[in-house]
Amino acid sequence: MKDLRLSATGLEVDHDGAPLQAFADTVLRGLGQVMLQNNSYAGLLFLAGIACNSPVFAGAALLGTLASTLAAIALEADRQMLRQGMFGFNGGLVGIALLCFLQPTPLAWACVALAAAGSTLVLAALQNALAAARLPVLTAPFVLTSLCVLLASTRFGRLQASDLLPTPGLPNGASLEGVATASTLGEGLLTGVGQVFLQDNMLTGALFILGLFVASRRACLAALAGSLSGMLVAWAMGAAEPAIRSGLFGYNSVLVAIALSGAALAPGRIAIACGLFATLATPFVTAASAAALEPLGLPALTLPFVLVTWTALLASRFSTS
Amino acid sequence: MKDLRLSATGLEVDHDGAPLQAFADTVLRGLGQVMLQNNSYAGLLFLAGIACNSPVFAGAALLGTLASTLAAIALEADRQMLRQGMFGFNGGLVGIALLCFLQPTPLAWACVALAAAGSTLVLAALQNALAAARLPVLTAPFVLTSLCVLLASTRFGRLQASDLLPTPGLPNGASLEGVATASTLGEGLLTGVGQVFLQDNMLTGALFILGLFVASRRACLAALAGSLSGMLVAWAMGAAEPAIRSGLFGYNSVLVAIALSGAALAPGRIAIACGLFATLATPFVTAASAAALEPLGLPALTLPFVLVTWTALLASRFSTS
Amino acid sequence: MKDLRLSATGLEVDHDGAPLQAFADTVLRGLGQVMLQNNSYAGLLFLAGIACNSPVFAGAALLGTLASTLAAIALEADRQMLRQGMFGFNGGLVGIALLCFLQPTPLAWACVALAAAGSTLVLAALQNALAAARLPVLTAPFVLTSLCVLLASTRFGRLQASDLLPTPGLPNGASLEGVATASTLGEGLLTGVGQVFLQDNMLTGALFILGLFVASRRACLAALAGSLSGMLVAWAMGAAEPAIRSGLFGYNSVLVAIALSGAALAPGRIAIACGLFATLATPFVTAASAAALEPLGLPALTLPFVLVTWTALLASRFSTS
Repeated sequence: MKDLRLSATGLEVDHDGAPLQAFADTVLRGLGQVMLQNNSYAGLLFLAGIACNSPVFAGAALLGTLASTLAAIALEADRQMLRQGMFGFNGGLVGIALLCFLQPTPLAWACVALAAAGSTLVLAALQNALAAARLPVLTAPFVLTSLCVLLASTRFGRLQASDLLPTPGLPNGASLEGVATASTLGEGLLTGVGQVFLQDNMLTGALFILGLFVASRRACLAALAGSLSGMLVAWAMGAAEPAIRSGLFGYNSVLVAIALSGAALAPGRIAIACGLFATLATPFVTAASAAALEPLGLPALTLPFVLVTWTALLASRFSTS
Repeated sequence: MKDLRLSATGLEVDHDGAPLQAFADTVLRGLGQVMLQNNSYAGLLFLAGIACNSPVFAGAALLGTLASTLAAIALEADRQMLRQGMFGFNGGLVGIALLCFLQPTPLAWACVALAAAGSTLVLAALQNALAAARLPVLTAPFVLTSLCVLLASTRFGRLQASDLLPTPGLPNGASLEGVATASTLGEGLLTGVGQVFLQDNMLTGALFILGLFVASRRACLAALAGSLSGMLVAWAMGAAEPAIRSGLFGYNSVLVAIALSGAALAPGRIAIACGLFATLATPFVTAASAAALEPLGLPALTLPFVLVTWTALLASRFSTS
Repeated sequence: MKDLRLSATGLEVDHDGAPLQAFADTVLRGLGQVMLQNNSYAGLLFLAGIACNSPVFAGAALLGTLASTLAAIALEADRQMLRQGMFGFNGGLVGIALLCFLQPTPLAWACVALAAAGSTLVLAALQNALAAARLPVLTAPFVLTSLCVLLASTRFGRLQASDLLPTPGLPNGASLEGVATASTLGEGLLTGVGQVFLQDNMLTGALFILGLFVASRRACLAALAGSLSGMLVAWAMGAAEPAIRSGLFGYNSVLVAIALSGAALAPGRIAIACGLFATLATPFVTAASAAALEPLGLPALTLPFVLVTWTALLASRFSTS
């Protein structure tokens, strides 16, 4: 706790003599950064959205964001990045993912705190590794840390998987399953945003959209456009209707759209090409990632978002290559 | 099409006032670059070789090369690289691979055009990512794009796999299967070259060799030496006779041999060591890649060529490290 | 052999006119470097430890170290690194791994020599690839080369797997298996060190510890602390008792502890954080790697050591990022 007090004192300046308030604000911004928003009100609405679907997940998100932020403070991370919540969002997602796919034993809760804190070191490592390529870490630390703990749980008798974790199996061809209707698209539009935090809940998605609206009209529009386009491409390819309805083809497109709309690509052909590419490629990478992880019985989480965004960002510097 | 006309006009200079002829030449060079030949006659002979095995694959190769080249023109790619077909060969291979492993529905043809165009952005991204290591992208964009679409097809009801796509399974030890004879080696020598374009056809292989001969005696010799050495190493290790006969242990060695013979390594011990390494390692990496992708039911395509060539190129700069 | 004589002559200086003695010393240092010790007595004790568990493995380790060192001499590698055994340890481990997981046919022995020599080129390539990130290659060349040959063996009828190679399967949740007692921890403490060379033998482990003690008290303590902490974390998570007893959760922690204790991290919060991270993360990454390779029927070897150490080293430069 000494670390915290120390740094919190350090934070006083930005928050006239209210270190704990500053810290709470930092944590909320951390939750906001899951959708790339440096905005504590957005974070608060995201937390509310999670809570109205499951208080347990809200608690896990809070604990994870707290642990990863404290780890960053202990590491004396860059104060401005810290203050913007850049060291909170991966931990928050780790918290939700572990309690979503593991049974909520006390040991699982302990793993949330430790894994979230560990994700800050993974973030620090990735930041160094990606510095040369001038790429942001995005949610890669969350994906790597969570998949590692979930994989490890298959060897650890005290960590039991929940029913939500996919059963390991070999991918085999899909047949057309269910018929997508207007209700599919309507529900999927909201759940697609909700799934960014692994929440399959329309109201949660609506509150997330509200949070985005408060933080940035542009991000809000991008999120809706992403959720819709992801569904439409998946639907055109014949993806299973239940998967579309529950937003599984939306959330990665939501994040890609927000990230690229905020990446300030120089307007022009390359920006258009990258946008088109991301729109069409994300549902394919989403399906491919899910299939690639099927033999291990792992969810793709936001891996497709990371892969597509990195590709688009690198490609957008084409002219400079 | 405006992009095309614009750039084609830009190309006039190299082709005295015949933009479309210049474009056709660019597309043929793109096919030639599959075997690293900046030569439109080679490209034409490669296309003829594919056509005499399957007009459908020839059409797919042409569509893919066209789409990826047009994407590069739209992205205002470096004109000289463009003119040399450097933005065509990955798309051409994507076209063949998708129609080879997916059922040839209209949607599959649409995916060929989109995936081939997308492979140009993957290429642009990889070019940036590999710039620091001074490595060429080789056929990595083709491999990544094709594997992604093939994996995604297991979740997309409207994209059905063809009989050529391997069935997912767990790798288990091989037993000696069949006896390799002179006819095995004779047939494998040609099919090994044919398989560079996924064509299991001796006449096709012969036409490819002719194309290489026209473009570069050195590349032609390297290709034959690669196809032969790949087979011999695999045979010595007890690989299945049918796999050797159909060139599956040849095509990666063919490409590695062409690439390294053209890489102008400073003659000396390091060049010799890299050559020996590539000769012996490629069949192992080929077998290992096929086994590694078996649980996902995916073909290794030219992944072994990419991995071995990158390793050899990096190792060849050993002294400088 | 000409290469050898030449360079050995070159080595005379450091070893007053005894080229072969200098070469033998280089090979022993190579074995010592498996535990990051530039000390020929340590190497000798490691070799003795392997021999008293299995003369075959000792021979394989010697042949592998010899082959990879000769390859480095032929490549005119940096003489000082060479003399410190930096080009021997990956080959030595390749030798043990191949004879441990493949049946010891003459062809398997030939593969040991070739693969070990090949691992030197993989090392050269990785060294170039990692130079920008200022990361050591550690045992990555060993892991990549060995996994490649073991995977390839599933397609090569003349290379048969031994009983020690895990059977391919899909990972599924573990149940609490066995009860860890004091004897589990006592045995595991020693076998955990022995498993660094894939030796499940307490006496072997004891000799390894003696070797470390001779070379560096600090490394010796780090190894014991690593072996113990790895077991304790795995035990707390409910790992299978037989796995803990045979040191499978110890050896990666042993190597991580030695590597980080020798990495001379600037003392302070970051060093403490990296140490805590490595202590807790290594058993998870060990379990996760084993599970991730289960569908391919491959052992994780020292992949967890490489991944955790790279992450910790990159994270330790956090402040500088």
